[in-house]
Amino acid sequence: VKKLVIFGVGLIGGSLALALKQAQYVTHIVGVGRSHASLDEALALKIIDSAETNFASALQDADLVMIAAPVAQTSEILQKIQPHLAPNTVITDAGSTKSDVLEAAKNVLGNQFSQFVGGHPIAGAEKSGAAAALANLYVGKNVIITPTQETNKEAVEVVRELWKACGANVSAMPADEHDSIFAAVSHLPHLLAFALVDDIASRNNANQLFSFAASGFRDFTRIAGSHPEMWRDISLANKAALLSELASFKEELNTLQQLLETEDANGLFALFERASLARNKWAQSKQ
Amino acid sequence: VKKLVIFGVGLIGGSLALALKQAQYVTHIVGVGRSHASLDEALALKIIDSAETNFASALQDADLVMIAAPVAQTSEILQKIQPHLAPNTVITDAGSTKSDVLEAAKNVLGNQFSQFVGGHPIAGAEKSGAAAALANLYVGKNVIITPTQETNKEAVEVVRELWKACGANVSAMPADEHDSIFAAVSHLPHLLAFALVDDIASRNNANQLFSFAASGFRDFTRIAGSHPEMWRDISLANKAALLSELASFKEELNTLQQLLETEDANGLFALFERASLARNKWAQSKQ
Repeated sequence: VKKLVIFGVGLIGGSLALALKQAQYVTHIVGVGRSHASLDEALALKIIDSAETNFASALQDADLVMIAAPVAQTSEILQKIQPHLAPNTVITDAGSTKSDVLEAAKNVLGNQFSQFVGGHPIAGAEKSGAAAALANLYVGKNVIITPTQETNKEAVEVVRELWKACGANVSAMPADEHDSIFAAVSHLPHLLAFALVDDIASRNNANQLFSFAASGFRDFTRIAGSHPEMWRDISLANKAALLSELASFKEELNTLQQLLETEDANGLFALFERASLARNKWAQSKQ
Repeated sequence: VKKLVIFGVGLIGGSLALALKQAQYVTHIVGVGRSHASLDEALALKIIDSAETNFASALQDADLVMIAAPVAQTSEILQKIQPHLAPNTVITDAGSTKSDVLEAAKNVLGNQFSQFVGGHPIAGAEKSGAAAALANLYVGKNVIITPTQETNKEAVEVVRELWKACGANVSAMPADEHDSIFAAVSHLPHLLAFALVDDIASRNNANQLFSFAASGFRDFTRIAGSHPEMWRDISLANKAALLSELASFKEELNTLQQLLETEDANGLFALFERASLARNKWAQSKQ
């Protein structure tokens, strides 16, 4: 890849740039962003080689375009890219939801939709912004790409190789399958953590409750400290799958409630044991 | 304190013993347990000075008795202690629920109930057993004691000073207040984590789901790896408060569901922002 254009040089886009530079996979990286300050920071940190605010010059001779801006901006960015898009330029993204992104890309790009490959790196960190970017953020991490039947096969390979050059494990699957999986293992847990903290924070004795919360609460609610704007956008983008997960979880809570009400010691033990074994087996497999 | 008797020399009882030895607060520590192996281990690690399986000799001349065995055994241990209990021996415990423990103590000890002080150190760790015991486990941690109007004032002070000698911050409150607080900030989060993992583990595509679960899922579900037996006992012991928390949480989930169904972006943002601000403020206060 000679010229890579990254929209949004924060943790995700910045870490990609650093990883690709380290792997000597890209000759020139152009950063495009809404804020001059963050582009200047990315230049100073040598994350990008040049910064652009003009879309036409940014896109000129670009081999690959990565959209790593907040998901709600994807459609707008695609609209600004479209008039300057050469037939051989591949576009991809790093958003946490995929069906909505593919729909936006199809609407905006029309018959150039074949050049778009949806992607989602399963990596994040407590911090955000270019200053938090790490060259090794994607090493050993999963990246999912969501090609469709219309997607150009060479474009898919370009994006797959891009992530492999960062040390990631790349899987391909349909966008709706991706969205179902992440509704279950990521989006629902975030909603539950937000809900628990909001429930406690709204009480008269909130300060007392928080003062006795300890390490279990700390870990359980870590994801409740996430960006409200990002999670509003993810929740709305993945509404259908998330509502389905919420319904399933409420069923599980009803089961637990009944076990408690009837003081079913064996039933409670069995449920806790199934969960505990599954959780510890998972944790071991991740080590 | 000249003679301290500890029932259950695991993480909680063992760490107490190590902390008190380090503070030179106790002259002689006797361990009592169901298993010879764990007593031998505690002796070998110099956590206890002697081991006993006979209750009469263990209790003789004891100033203080700590019950740090699983909560479900508390009533049985009290029954075995009661015939050998001198009028000046103070008894306390380290169980995660307090109303049920006080009720058991009152039933078993009768007019010696004044010698019993309920306690709960808010400390734990991934590991359990004497080998995991740490002299500094309680430094800076909260310990709640739950004296009643019948409790001997000197007994309360003995238990308060015991925990202060370990470096803990000691608060006193009624048992039902304790149980309400921990239903909210500890017991409900455990139930939610167990429920989420059980819900996922029961699906046909559980392996696929687990394979894409990442760091948010890891932290959110850490407490789902807890001991099933311990959490069965805590759930049943604190049933009323826990059912009340479950009802409150389901209301909060219904609110979230409605915000999602109506695509209320501002409402979702407001809820996530309240939670995120409260969670990050809490985390900062704990640093």
